[in-house]
Amino acid sequence: MQPPDPSRPAFRHAVRVYWEDTDAGGIVFYANYLKFFERARTEWLRAIGIEQHALREATGAIFIVGETAVRFLRPSRLDDLLDVTVELRAAGRASMTLVQQAWRGNELLAEGDIRIGWVDAQTLRPRRIPPTLLERLA
Amino acid sequence: MQPPDPSRPAFRHAVRVYWEDTDAGGIVFYANYLKFFERARTEWLRAIGIEQHALREATGAIFIVGETAVRFLRPSRLDDLLDVTVELRAAGRASMTLVQQAWRGNELLAEGDIRIGWVDAQTLRPRRIPPTLLERLA
Amino acid sequence: MQPPDPSRPAFRHAVRVYWEDTDAGGIVFYANYLKFFERARTEWLRAIGIEQHALREATGAIFIVGETAVRFLRPSRLDDLLDVTVELRAAGRASMTLVQQAWRGNELLAEGDIRIGWVDAQTLRPRRIPPTLLERLA
Amino acid sequence: MQPPDPSRPAFRHAVRVYWEDTDAGGIVFYANYLKFFERARTEWLRAIGIEQHALREATGAIFIVGETAVRFLRPSRLDDLLDVTVELRAAGRASMTLVQQAWRGNELLAEGDIRIGWVDAQTLRPRRIPPTLLERLA
Repeated sequence: MQPPDPSRPAFRHAVRVYWEDTDAGGIVFYANYLKFFERARTEWLRAIGIEQHALREATGAIFIVGETAVRFLRPSRLDDLLDVTVELRAAGRASMTLVQQAWRGNELLAEGDIRIGWVDAQTLRPRRIPPTLLERLA
Repeated sequence: MQPPDPSRPAFRHAVRVYWEDTDAGGIVFYANYLKFFERARTEWLRAIGIEQHALREATGAIFIVGETAVRFLRPSRLDDLLDVTVELRAAGRASMTLVQQAWRGNELLAEGDIRIGWVDAQTLRPRRIPPTLLERLA
Repeated sequence: MQPPDPSRPAFRHAVRVYWEDTDAGGIVFYANYLKFFERARTEWLRAIGIEQHALREATGAIFIVGETAVRFLRPSRLDDLLDVTVELRAAGRASMTLVQQAWRGNELLAEGDIRIGWVDAQTLRPRRIPPTLLERLA
Repeated sequence: MQPPDPSRPAFRHAVRVYWEDTDAGGIVFYANYLKFFERARTEWLRAIGIEQHALREATGAIFIVGETAVRFLRPSRLDDLLDVTVELRAAGRASMTLVQQAWRGNELLAEGDIRIGWVDAQTLRPRRIPPTLLERLA
């Protein structure tokens, strides 16, 4: 696999590996890559002007993860500095799909497809993503 | 220090150590003892008939941790089975103090004093603990 | 989808939802289902006589998660009691694949395919699963 | 209480609050402030030239938390940007004590005293902090 092409518009967010992220195998606990991916998605949204807490207050709806498919390719260790990317693959009426990767320099450590839905914050039932939100995402 | 005296009414809750609880030091990440303590408190409340989710629906208030003082005495490792105890030390109008310990057999691994407040679930402002709740706690 | 058929030999492990498992959406943070799945796998291994900490001391190798595909179907809340299942789908020379589900009564909340490898604990390079271990798994 | 005096040399590290940090109370789960404090300590050590992973390789020893006393004063929410401070209060032969605070603007959210020991990475028995390390800390 190739490192992300700098000419492509994938969003990047730096994540440092701390003690809290590791397990007794001496490496990052695999489930924690999902946290790293989410931090990067949150910063990606923030970079296009979307604050999730404010968005919830304004719309009564929240993003929710519906499906994840993640491959863990190489281990990461304490003090590593990772680059976590976000790329919008598809956006529909009620959900969107993102491709996310975690890199350490030129090494791809983990990558995943994440499907996100847009739901009512109380009932958690699917809602249509507001068109103005969809436009900003695209 | 002595193991808990079986004649004393300290509540006990068993906690197994999983990968998620450990760090790259090969031992349980110290902050996770606070999670173990909270699981034991939740089961202690349940044992006296208090379900926190239902209680919040009924009263609009929740317990919240205001202060913790914890000593980490011996390490714990993957697959260890711990006994986590709860003992009510003091209960006042708006808060209570618990002493909690984590044991592996006769070895005391960690112990702490935990002060819990009772607050409005929306504003998080202190409220008086309902008398019927205080009675059950005592 | 149907609840697990009681005539089938899926292993089950009970998991209680605590505060630590939830997020500000009021529901279980999706990545935590991976923790629940792992607790169930660990207990499944224990039930067939495999303690991972001891196994590592004996063989110098550990199980490691290589790939996860998880669908999050319904939310779970504080105090819910979940049934988490483990079913071995396939076991090869260096890895095995498990199907895991989280149930609340008759409601399927989450399900996933988890591929586990067997690697050297120091180098994290793939090793062949010892035949005696494979036999016990089957 | 007063905000940290900008003329004082307390180290500061910015921490953003993500979904993973919150609980069903809608606020940061209290135990997670210990993670925030540790991230700040790690960056404070890094700022004075100490990388813990490399240090362990070089000395066979690690820092370990022996005692924490934390007061949780005000809640924090999703998307908040916190300033976490580190101040060395005392350093002895085998341990040091730090005062740490979490601020949101001028509001103090949490503060704690953290005692850190220096132990053999294998046996976890206390060792004397190497003089060159102590000098750098001071």
